[in-house]
Amino acid sequence: MTQHPSERTRVKRLAKRAHYDEATVHGILDAQPFCTVGYIFNGTPFVTPTMQWREGNHIYWHGSSASRALEAAKDADVCVNVTLIDGMVMARSAFNHSVNYRSVMAFGKAFKVTDPAEKEQKMKTFVDTLFPDRWDMLRKMTPQEFKATMILGLELDEVSAKVRATGPGDDEEDFALPIWAGVIPVKTQILPPVDCERLPAGLTPPDHVKAFKFG
Amino acid sequence: MTQHPSERTRVKRLAKRAHYDEATVHGILDAQPFCTVGYIFNGTPFVTPTMQWREGNHIYWHGSSASRALEAAKDADVCVNVTLIDGMVMARSAFNHSVNYRSVMAFGKAFKVTDPAEKEQKMKTFVDTLFPDRWDMLRKMTPQEFKATMILGLELDEVSAKVRATGPGDDEEDFALPIWAGVIPVKTQILPPVDCERLPAGLTPPDHVKAFKFG
Repeated sequence: MTQHPSERTRVKRLAKRAHYDEATVHGILDAQPFCTVGYIFNGTPFVTPTMQWREGNHIYWHGSSASRALEAAKDADVCVNVTLIDGMVMARSAFNHSVNYRSVMAFGKAFKVTDPAEKEQKMKTFVDTLFPDRWDMLRKMTPQEFKATMILGLELDEVSAKVRATGPGDDEEDFALPIWAGVIPVKTQILPPVDCERLPAGLTPPDHVKAFKFG
Repeated sequence: MTQHPSERTRVKRLAKRAHYDEATVHGILDAQPFCTVGYIFNGTPFVTPTMQWREGNHIYWHGSSASRALEAAKDADVCVNVTLIDGMVMARSAFNHSVNYRSVMAFGKAFKVTDPAEKEQKMKTFVDTLFPDRWDMLRKMTPQEFKATMILGLELDEVSAKVRATGPGDDEEDFALPIWAGVIPVKTQILPPVDCERLPAGLTPPDHVKAFKFG
């Protein structure tokens, strides 16, 4: 991973929030599987929400082989954004209200994973990264299912992170005002699993369900 | 709002998940202030996370007047995506795993809000939509702060929603397999507020903080 900013990844606004180091970037990508992928289709921008997973210095996402979003992004410039919201930052002025967040922007040309063995390994890694050891418990993927699945990858070459994780940054003269200020923390909550209505009797959730969390 | 799909908003994949009605689209936009805005800058796609608020048939977002993301999106084609994640859908096969979600895609040309009175009303609506009655409690915005703030808007003309909210959709012959399947519900959790370290003694959180929730 290139640890210096490019023209596209240099954080221009609030440069104090910028990070270009691998530990910060990988940490955010590993904590948040949901992402949006930006690409150009017929000359206009599209943003598609999907899930990403990281292997070393690449991220991957997948979808239907018939997907317009994947077909348009293949071999084309993309921008992948991953964002975690950590809190609402409430200041004494509207202007100084803010949000605590961790965000990554990755730019580059997306490539299609075509080798069948690599495709299978990538799908296994995606499943097992979210749900350890689940892949081997599942009904095997069929050749038709592999054919119907497209995987795109992006090298983490041109990438930056932006992080805000502090209390309100009010103007010095505003701190003494009689206005409540602080942070409302926000997090993703995982609730207890709900059985499929057609689950055979006696089956209980495995550990990767009971202990599920993101990252 | 146009309640029929355009070429860009017609959901091609899994059309059964598609919705074009105002109630569904507005409901999702009102439940999730965080969004990503896709735009083209120097010929390549960018995706910027930000917050949106809705007024009637428009959504708005704001940022610094010096923001590259806002300047590039102004009077240009954008795609705004709003997504809520509601659950991890765990099936008997990798292929049938899915996610429960509510998502909106809005396309069109973003416009800049220039009228000073309208800008002030928009900022007030943004603050008070998130935190009812907060605007009037705050130190007033200065002319310099208004000058430093840019607001962009988008008419909800070309827009679609996609929703998945069911259990696993396994292949018929897979339902009887001895594999746990179901849904792990996911939601956004709001934690108790944390006072600013420099809060004057005796100030307590107002109702819009104590009862804060999205939507």
